[in-house]
Amino acid sequence: MSKRFQVVGIGNAMVDVLSHCDDAFLADNGVEKGIMQLIDMARGTELYDKIGAATEMSGGSAANTIAGVAHLGGRAAYVGKVKDDQLGRIFVHDLRAQGVSYDVPLAHADHAHETGRCIVLVTPDGERSMNTYLGVTEHLSPDDIDEAVMAEAEWIFLEGYRFDGPESHEAFAKAIAAAKGAGGKVALTLSDPFCIDRHHEAFARMLRDDVDLLFANRAEIEAMYDVAFDAALEAAAAEVETVVCTESEHGAHILAGGTRIHCPAVPTKVVDATGAGDLFAGAFLWALAEGYDLETCGTMANIAGSEVISHLGARVETDLKPRFREFGLKV
Amino acid sequence: MSKRFQVVGIGNAMVDVLSHCDDAFLADNGVEKGIMQLIDMARGTELYDKIGAATEMSGGSAANTIAGVAHLGGRAAYVGKVKDDQLGRIFVHDLRAQGVSYDVPLAHADHAHETGRCIVLVTPDGERSMNTYLGVTEHLSPDDIDEAVMAEAEWIFLEGYRFDGPESHEAFAKAIAAAKGAGGKVALTLSDPFCIDRHHEAFARMLRDDVDLLFANRAEIEAMYDVAFDAALEAAAAEVETVVCTESEHGAHILAGGTRIHCPAVPTKVVDATGAGDLFAGAFLWALAEGYDLETCGTMANIAGSEVISHLGARVETDLKPRFREFGLKV
Repeated sequence: MSKRFQVVGIGNAMVDVLSHCDDAFLADNGVEKGIMQLIDMARGTELYDKIGAATEMSGGSAANTIAGVAHLGGRAAYVGKVKDDQLGRIFVHDLRAQGVSYDVPLAHADHAHETGRCIVLVTPDGERSMNTYLGVTEHLSPDDIDEAVMAEAEWIFLEGYRFDGPESHEAFAKAIAAAKGAGGKVALTLSDPFCIDRHHEAFARMLRDDVDLLFANRAEIEAMYDVAFDAALEAAAAEVETVVCTESEHGAHILAGGTRIHCPAVPTKVVDATGAGDLFAGAFLWALAEGYDLETCGTMANIAGSEVISHLGARVETDLKPRFREFGLKV
Repeated sequence: MSKRFQVVGIGNAMVDVLSHCDDAFLADNGVEKGIMQLIDMARGTELYDKIGAATEMSGGSAANTIAGVAHLGGRAAYVGKVKDDQLGRIFVHDLRAQGVSYDVPLAHADHAHETGRCIVLVTPDGERSMNTYLGVTEHLSPDDIDEAVMAEAEWIFLEGYRFDGPESHEAFAKAIAAAKGAGGKVALTLSDPFCIDRHHEAFARMLRDDVDLLFANRAEIEAMYDVAFDAALEAAAAEVETVVCTESEHGAHILAGGTRIHCPAVPTKVVDATGAGDLFAGAFLWALAEGYDLETCGTMANIAGSEVISHLGARVETDLKPRFREFGLKV
């Protein structure tokens, strides 16, 4: 019996501020390359004053994933907090315009914090270095979790980044209980190695008790299990039903039911790596909910990830289904 | 003796909201293709609710021109009004980040109107249809015109669109007097045929009395002089020292000192036509201020226009000077 939503994502709601720079700029301004750093408003203002002209696009890791699910025609909802300000209204518009159900109340215009944003610095190699001011998204509370929505989800998709914030663990616990109580399943993305450092214990408990599908990349799964790559994959597969691990140009590895599948990457010129993992997860979840086998899920996910790195911004721009067909997949 | 600024632009300060749609969407929603329509906030909200996911980028016709001047290393300033809100701060940042001097006081956060924005709908043919909510930019007043800045300008560049608004004519008169009184020259762009309908008398008086350099496209110059194309060019040249008229894929015509020069267009795949005329004017003004001959000015302008239509958004993204060199120009 299909539920109202195939995937409900919970994550940090953000508008991305995308700008190009060179590696020297990163070094001169204390930006560590290729990762996500949390910054406060003062640091955000300081950095913003130094970067070049920028482009604003809705972002947020799980929101990108969910936008990808909806892009593919999936039934998707999103939970993440923005303020009733211009950037917040942009964020809401862009999600709804892509067909995502989104009903989290906006934080009031008087709220002390603004809508979160992420200064994404893109270097000539296409790598992105993210500087995140969480703003109101840090204050997503259990009150923002609508148990009825969670109960209507075949999958809930939890963003590791969203574990930062005072009430986030409680909010996730509420979402998991509501989803699982209604027969739903739980997917988690570890988001990044530093995020794992901050929330290792919470992640470990969830992986053991709650998570049915884990998304990670190589660095993340090694950080999570603190062993070499293959051992980390095995350790994850021992406690999680399906483990999906990306390894950049080496493709994706899927471990489930005692088997291991490799899906080769789709060669692409990297313009902006922002969103690659997010769209990978979005296409994978959509394909899984549609009943495709795991290898096809991984192939579609690789194709989706390759689309989003071929242009600036973290949301899909071109219709993915024709691309799937070019690879011989039936959609 | 060179002045502090080569070009000071005055125009409507806007953030562009860029989204793709098909021709049917334009027809279904009463958007006239290829032109700029002024809309109020209610219509803006209604239209925004219907468009797809969007990208936000700083825009504004004269601001795009001035950003182009600065991109080329020119000394440039801009005058246009935004509010102290998130979009206003984005606009200010992007101009300053490109090296433009910009010191117009922000409208206070309590101002009844928000920072202006333009919903730019891009169809598959690359044509853009613009829907402009002017917001606070309509309220640029003579008080916002710093006569000292105008006196420091070799050229002031006036945007035809900016003639809409209660105090705009007075503000322009003040700017012209200050610039001309200090030996500066006046350039005007007619912006679009409908803008000419609204302000024909003001434009006619300025062309006769004040304008040293006119930018127009074929439709605009025909609308302005209400005669066939060649006759319109001659009529303009009879009252304006230098007339520069673009004719899309047929290139640009320059009339000055009794001669007429033709500069062929640079063939380009049109992704998004937004900003083509703006960047044409920016490169032309920069080249003129740098002392290049008119034919070179026109060629550089064509190259700049072709760059900006090759991608989404109305600001230059790639370094233009190497492009100029590819065409055998010395920069």
